[in-house]
Amino acid sequence: MTAHYKQVTIVGVGLLGGSLGLALKLAGLAERVRGVGHRQSSLDTARDCGAVDETYLNVSDALAGTDLVVLCTPAAMVPHLLDTIRDKCHPDALVTDVASTKAAICEHAEQTWPKPLRFVGSHPMAGSEKFGAENAYASLYEGSSVLVTPTTHSDANYVARTKTLWESVGANVVEMAPDLHDRLVANTSHVPHIVAACLAELAANSGGAKAVIGNGFRDMTRIAAGRSEIWRDICMTNPQAISTGLNELRKLLDEVRGMIDTGDAAALERFFTEAHKARDRAMRE
Amino acid sequence: MTAHYKQVTIVGVGLLGGSLGLALKLAGLAERVRGVGHRQSSLDTARDCGAVDETYLNVSDALAGTDLVVLCTPAAMVPHLLDTIRDKCHPDALVTDVASTKAAICEHAEQTWPKPLRFVGSHPMAGSEKFGAENAYASLYEGSSVLVTPTTHSDANYVARTKTLWESVGANVVEMAPDLHDRLVANTSHVPHIVAACLAELAANSGGAKAVIGNGFRDMTRIAAGRSEIWRDICMTNPQAISTGLNELRKLLDEVRGMIDTGDAAALERFFTEAHKARDRAMRE
Repeated sequence: MTAHYKQVTIVGVGLLGGSLGLALKLAGLAERVRGVGHRQSSLDTARDCGAVDETYLNVSDALAGTDLVVLCTPAAMVPHLLDTIRDKCHPDALVTDVASTKAAICEHAEQTWPKPLRFVGSHPMAGSEKFGAENAYASLYEGSSVLVTPTTHSDANYVARTKTLWESVGANVVEMAPDLHDRLVANTSHVPHIVAACLAELAANSGGAKAVIGNGFRDMTRIAAGRSEIWRDICMTNPQAISTGLNELRKLLDEVRGMIDTGDAAALERFFTEAHKARDRAMRE
Repeated sequence: MTAHYKQVTIVGVGLLGGSLGLALKLAGLAERVRGVGHRQSSLDTARDCGAVDETYLNVSDALAGTDLVVLCTPAAMVPHLLDTIRDKCHPDALVTDVASTKAAICEHAEQTWPKPLRFVGSHPMAGSEKFGAENAYASLYEGSSVLVTPTTHSDANYVARTKTLWESVGANVVEMAPDLHDRLVANTSHVPHIVAACLAELAANSGGAKAVIGNGFRDMTRIAAGRSEIWRDICMTNPQAISTGLNELRKLLDEVRGMIDTGDAAALERFFTEAHKARDRAMRE
């Protein structure tokens, strides 16, 4: 099943929003794409590269006649946007977002939008250190995973339509509750990102590290090159799960440090063997 | 300047030892390479792939007529090997090793070997998760960094010869004191490895992580797939620097957790901006 939209409104035309516009237009799934942003220069870039047909500085002006709204702004702006558009979207319009944290956003929608909810949260696991519409490309979502996070109040039809949207641009959709989503991404993405940032600090504070830096360090800290405002927002919108994950990590690190301080070779070997298996298990289950 | 050896004895014919044998033989820098190991099957593999010409199960039998000895065993075995070979090597023979930790090994040599020292520690920053002579290849060291760690008692001529050895197989040599070496690799390699292992555990303990695992997690935990006995030995031979590094990391993580728990958006954004700069700085300086 593929989607078809007369008019799509994409709010935030960066890498994710721009790539979605390109993908929908190139596949002939959207007749017209409207881009909304707060800087005309970014909107012009998105239009020039073919990601959107029309540009708007005000979201309220961009909703008339739209049957799909995708909020592609940083996570912290989504609740406010949901307030702004709630009474301005067509009642049949599907509304989704692409933020990396879902519990706060979905809870806000539950508390403020009519039920059954026609807003359904999405989190495409796509993108990289690059950002901006100038880096957008139509195949960004092909083969990627998109997490769709319905709640008990979601309209089942809209959940299905959200899944169809992402499948139409080549993604593999996995459905999970917003709370579980936030806990899992905290432990597999947010905590690792914070750790990468701390490891970069540790290395820089060591002085003369360049000579000893190998591929392991480069791989582990690559994600520390992400955009600080995005990661600030992720921490601000998923604080509890991240704090819990950091605490769990601290316990694990303290255990290893205990083995090192007491010179417990057998425990260290067991720990590294288990970690190797844990990595395989995490990527399999 | 290139090296030339009549006879090289490589103790431990795994990925590093086997690749060194291949590189020296293919470049015509060694007339004969002897391989020493404790399993004949590994030695046979090394001989079959051309890394060594002769195989020995006992290091003492393999030293007569040798002008270069390279100890390619795990770090924990090097001090004992230094004891074994001390009075059996030709007085002019250059002796080096490839262990990832240097302070304990170099200190042992200083305390037990005649001065000026003709043992000079080396740490090639080469290799991967793969191991064994069956994965050896002649170009492993080409373009890699090799850290050479002389002490105040090192024979300057032997330090120069050690550098020439590695440069002859294409490596870039950086000289540094063993203590500084161990502190830098603790902070840029050993601590990151332990963290990767802990992150793999954290993800596996989360349940259902597979759906949300992206490239960031894969990159960050790749090094957790290393060999547990190697990493056990690294922890056992560099405990102080690793423990100090883990403590520094813990302080940094606690700071971030504090920012998250208090919802300090400005501090979080500063932290991520600084970490991005720190990564660039660490890789540049």
